[in-house]
Amino acid sequence: MLKVAVLGVGGYGGSEVLRILHQHPHVTINHFGANTQAGVSISQSFGQFLGIFDNTMQKNDLLEIAEDNDCIVAATPHEFLAKILTSEVTNNVVVIDLSADFRLKNPDKYQEYYHFVHPNPTLLQSAVYGLCELNKGHIYNANLIANPGCYPTCSTFCILPLLQRDIIQHSSIIIDAKSGVSGAGRNAKLENNFCEVYENIKAYGLIKHRHIAEIEQNLYLFSQGLDDMSVTFTPHLVPMNRGILITAYANLAERYNDITQADIDSIYEEFCADKYFVRYLSGVAPQTRWVRGSNFVDISACLDKRNKRVIMMGAIDNLVKGAAGSAIQNLNIRFGFPENTALESIALFP
Amino acid sequence: MLKVAVLGVGGYGGSEVLRILHQHPHVTINHFGANTQAGVSISQSFGQFLGIFDNTMQKNDLLEIAEDNDCIVAATPHEFLAKILTSEVTNNVVVIDLSADFRLKNPDKYQEYYHFVHPNPTLLQSAVYGLCELNKGHIYNANLIANPGCYPTCSTFCILPLLQRDIIQHSSIIIDAKSGVSGAGRNAKLENNFCEVYENIKAYGLIKHRHIAEIEQNLYLFSQGLDDMSVTFTPHLVPMNRGILITAYANLAERYNDITQADIDSIYEEFCADKYFVRYLSGVAPQTRWVRGSNFVDISACLDKRNKRVIMMGAIDNLVKGAAGSAIQNLNIRFGFPENTALESIALFP
Amino acid sequence: MLKVAVLGVGGYGGSEVLRILHQHPHVTINHFGANTQAGVSISQSFGQFLGIFDNTMQKNDLLEIAEDNDCIVAATPHEFLAKILTSEVTNNVVVIDLSADFRLKNPDKYQEYYHFVHPNPTLLQSAVYGLCELNKGHIYNANLIANPGCYPTCSTFCILPLLQRDIIQHSSIIIDAKSGVSGAGRNAKLENNFCEVYENIKAYGLIKHRHIAEIEQNLYLFSQGLDDMSVTFTPHLVPMNRGILITAYANLAERYNDITQADIDSIYEEFCADKYFVRYLSGVAPQTRWVRGSNFVDISACLDKRNKRVIMMGAIDNLVKGAAGSAIQNLNIRFGFPENTALESIALFP
Amino acid sequence: MLKVAVLGVGGYGGSEVLRILHQHPHVTINHFGANTQAGVSISQSFGQFLGIFDNTMQKNDLLEIAEDNDCIVAATPHEFLAKILTSEVTNNVVVIDLSADFRLKNPDKYQEYYHFVHPNPTLLQSAVYGLCELNKGHIYNANLIANPGCYPTCSTFCILPLLQRDIIQHSSIIIDAKSGVSGAGRNAKLENNFCEVYENIKAYGLIKHRHIAEIEQNLYLFSQGLDDMSVTFTPHLVPMNRGILITAYANLAERYNDITQADIDSIYEEFCADKYFVRYLSGVAPQTRWVRGSNFVDISACLDKRNKRVIMMGAIDNLVKGAAGSAIQNLNIRFGFPENTALESIALFP
Repeated sequence: MLKVAVLGVGGYGGSEVLRILHQHPHVTINHFGANTQAGVSISQSFGQFLGIFDNTMQKNDLLEIAEDNDCIVAATPHEFLAKILTSEVTNNVVVIDLSADFRLKNPDKYQEYYHFVHPNPTLLQSAVYGLCELNKGHIYNANLIANPGCYPTCSTFCILPLLQRDIIQHSSIIIDAKSGVSGAGRNAKLENNFCEVYENIKAYGLIKHRHIAEIEQNLYLFSQGLDDMSVTFTPHLVPMNRGILITAYANLAERYNDITQADIDSIYEEFCADKYFVRYLSGVAPQTRWVRGSNFVDISACLDKRNKRVIMMGAIDNLVKGAAGSAIQNLNIRFGFPENTALESIALFP
Repeated sequence: MLKVAVLGVGGYGGSEVLRILHQHPHVTINHFGANTQAGVSISQSFGQFLGIFDNTMQKNDLLEIAEDNDCIVAATPHEFLAKILTSEVTNNVVVIDLSADFRLKNPDKYQEYYHFVHPNPTLLQSAVYGLCELNKGHIYNANLIANPGCYPTCSTFCILPLLQRDIIQHSSIIIDAKSGVSGAGRNAKLENNFCEVYENIKAYGLIKHRHIAEIEQNLYLFSQGLDDMSVTFTPHLVPMNRGILITAYANLAERYNDITQADIDSIYEEFCADKYFVRYLSGVAPQTRWVRGSNFVDISACLDKRNKRVIMMGAIDNLVKGAAGSAIQNLNIRFGFPENTALESIALFP
Repeated sequence: MLKVAVLGVGGYGGSEVLRILHQHPHVTINHFGANTQAGVSISQSFGQFLGIFDNTMQKNDLLEIAEDNDCIVAATPHEFLAKILTSEVTNNVVVIDLSADFRLKNPDKYQEYYHFVHPNPTLLQSAVYGLCELNKGHIYNANLIANPGCYPTCSTFCILPLLQRDIIQHSSIIIDAKSGVSGAGRNAKLENNFCEVYENIKAYGLIKHRHIAEIEQNLYLFSQGLDDMSVTFTPHLVPMNRGILITAYANLAERYNDITQADIDSIYEEFCADKYFVRYLSGVAPQTRWVRGSNFVDISACLDKRNKRVIMMGAIDNLVKGAAGSAIQNLNIRFGFPENTALESIALFP
Repeated sequence: MLKVAVLGVGGYGGSEVLRILHQHPHVTINHFGANTQAGVSISQSFGQFLGIFDNTMQKNDLLEIAEDNDCIVAATPHEFLAKILTSEVTNNVVVIDLSADFRLKNPDKYQEYYHFVHPNPTLLQSAVYGLCELNKGHIYNANLIANPGCYPTCSTFCILPLLQRDIIQHSSIIIDAKSGVSGAGRNAKLENNFCEVYENIKAYGLIKHRHIAEIEQNLYLFSQGLDDMSVTFTPHLVPMNRGILITAYANLAERYNDITQADIDSIYEEFCADKYFVRYLSGVAPQTRWVRGSNFVDISACLDKRNKRVIMMGAIDNLVKGAAGSAIQNLNIRFGFPENTALESIALFP
């Protein structure tokens, strides 16, 4: 049995890691780490774990945790792990980090988008970006895996199939994103109070959302592009718990003005063919309810012939494929378990 | 007192007309028209009217209704009024039609977008498009007022201020729209069943939504443009009752690449200055909760300098400014009442 | 014009007072009081007021406010007004208090249910309980009006018609209540975070909820009972913004075992006959949507003959008839305006 | 591998059976039965099954299905199976019926509560009531298992521990129930349209709900009572997808007037000790979110000493422990698999 320490179990991401690991036949959870809730039992904070995980949450030294475990899955806030993680730890244990701390290769971007100077650029360079389907080759041997963000995961799968073949104009990409409220974390903030969110929709983080840098990095790296990418990204808050829906727009490259919907379908189907968790919906728009609680990414694309554009859509559960599910998928790849172990749950609908 | 007949009171649009007219000091509702629910009392169908409107819904001859009333407000389904309305009726009575039947000047668009041949192109030509703030001059004397659609109303106010000054490229406009469920009407359809909609978001009507023709007509006519307009429009269904949020994107015209956020703010503020119901939110994104149940349109615009684009946003209550409120505003203008009579309610939040 | 100061406008109760007073033809709002939000404009905190109330919230001395105004409507937290209110203030100005500070005649109950020693028992005795329909005679001349709580208002109207005729057994009353989240106020608390409330229902405040004392006082006083009342009261939190639904149960007094549904209907109809805002629904269960945003109380009763019980039901909007609407109704009565001035809005449905 | 036919897979109950069976290591789904949706692929109707179950739904002869399978799990409407099921079928195959058709031992109750004459009273007598934890002894050998209703399941676990020890007065039981909308099935009905349900709560089925007979039968049989039971039962519709919450009230039997909360806790803890899926929450009220998507029943009880009453509470997911989960639990018991096979999922929260 693989011994796993989960950090940040008092949050939505951490508790989701527990939920999924409970289904994993080869993993035992050996440490339940938390910060402000240390000392409290998990099932007191999250009633769903009653009788299953009644363990007390603990706030331990990272090195100590590293010595007792094979893997640390950290669902801690941004800027937390970057400050305390050392190569001594990553030499002892595989670290899978759900925060953004090790995702961006260019350390300057942390200042621009996260407003802190990255404290450990060396470790940052050694981290492997854990977008499983696209970076598997590097994950096999990684000791520090930067688990991707929710918006970047969904956006990348939507856009990449056409971008990597230069079918769409690089500078024309607009991403209109919609997210449920769990993406904001488990904090007491007035703006996320029930009455402030219910029966409402709003845009937020206009032109400055933190995930922009990660999306642009993905589109550039995975398309093996020549130029830096620059996209317009507008997230919206939707009155629901879980789910991200991406609606992305791009202009066709001129030489592809005569592309057909059938051509587009073929390209996406080919892209998905070897990716178990990425499903292409031909002629149907994705919906977050079809992936709720599951690790699937549903994508679709619609040719807007009249305007020489493509509408690229995608749906994920932000807490599963956008966070905890992806983390376990990384764990599976890294430790040689079948990639979909503990991740085969079908969406909970309704 | 002005005698008003309301048709289609068994639907959400019609009942909303009743709710607003109840606050109108110069109007008496003289006829409650319905089709399938004829014979039933309104308060049985809509419990909120108990003790206020307990009248029986009736299915009467249109000419007869015209003779007994000064104004007909019709919240009937598309293709209903176009078939039965005659100039004999509109000579007798002012007709305000909430359906799309008299909105599109080009009759061919009805075949393309509504899948029927318009039965009365002559009457269609005589109709006045009732987007109050932009077409007031024609509404004063109109006998047939085509009340605008919800998406077109909100989209037009968002985009027009920049479009009419050619600050944005005409062919670059992308409208990503989000709507509550009441826009789908009061029908028993599985796709609008609670469990199918709650905790879900999806795009629908991709590249073919009926409102595209009306949006393009508005942008063309009110910007006094030289070319036909063509936009990409993607509506989404959001799990809430009321509200439309528009997030529109356009590229800056080249000679405006140096425009500042302050310039944009000034343009919008000037646009709104003489429009009581249109509010510009400087530096803040609109939210549907701030207009819920009110006749306001909240708009905002954000310069995406990095990408030489503008993000134009707007929020309305689809049943008020997007339907019944706008209809009463038209009634006020047409009959010489102050424009905001019965329409001054502040949004119901939370 | 009556000059009114509204305190606590940064909360849901206070903002609702503003919304309703905006429709009042004889009132001008002369002071917008707040505590933590003092210095901020109201429309910045509550976007719905943009262009209507852009006033800055202020934290002023109570005596000073009293001198400048005819009436103070206080939507302040429990234990706030009791501490600072003096007879000097109430001699100058009519005070309508939405908190519980002056509702309970027995000061000991404040210790038992609110965990504080009432600081001003003299003022407490002089206060008039503002349940308009049942206590009008005293409200006409009151200088300190204790506006009733939401659960007690709805419960009292449900149960009183049968209780005051001794048709039900006094000791058998069980009240199962359901409330939307706005009743919890506008505070950042994790337990009211969207994700903690949405898609969930729970009971809370079991056997100890603060409103128990007020409900029992009402049932005792208004039924002119001989004995103290004691009821079981269980509130539940429902994932919606507004609305309280009461489902109350009681055993028939033995000599009424043969009462019929028609008898019960008559009793309720007689009770409602002279009460504009109290509507009896014969044979239909009340629903919160029919009163959303309105000042109505919808009640109904169903005979459970088989079990010799009655099920008594009621619905209100907790922020209107359960708080701000009731406060304005008290203001109208106290200052001689027609009772329903500014309160005739029909529920906003959907 | 056990060959299972699932009937009614186009509904919420049937699709939930599929979701759970997908996790079952010893079951293969061999037939996907539907009625109106026959000919359509399941994943077209329920997008979550895309790539997992793309099978075509079929409408086959029951005997034929029986011959090809080891077990039929029927999530068909009431009155469907009773009409066509024969002993020839149940001799061939184990039938687990999620409808009410074989739950009530007294055939007269079908006329009273379901408004049809039971077509097969002989088969009815042979059916075993599948409340797993309480009737396991009979389930081992049953060929026709009547899977319990959602309200009766939850109510029985709440009330039975005190009832079977005669701690509460039999005639004093009042059950106030709250349910999400999925309990109403997957049908296009106006009353379940999103806008009619959202931001609303109502009681329904007053004094006549179909589940009353089943609840009374359970309380009588499992408490081994001497008298028939008669309870007041009021269900409410809550704006959420899944979940049932029961709040039940009963008076203490006189000789138990001095019972303590600790006594009550002990009784419940003892009751739950040998029941994996029944969890007692000491001092905490159950919430539907802690059981969403899981097979757990969370129960709790609170002594209302002042009123000599007990408040008994319970929460289940109506589609899991209240339907499909319970059906698979029955299947496990009947075919000798560990009882919690495929049923260990932790609730999906948030």
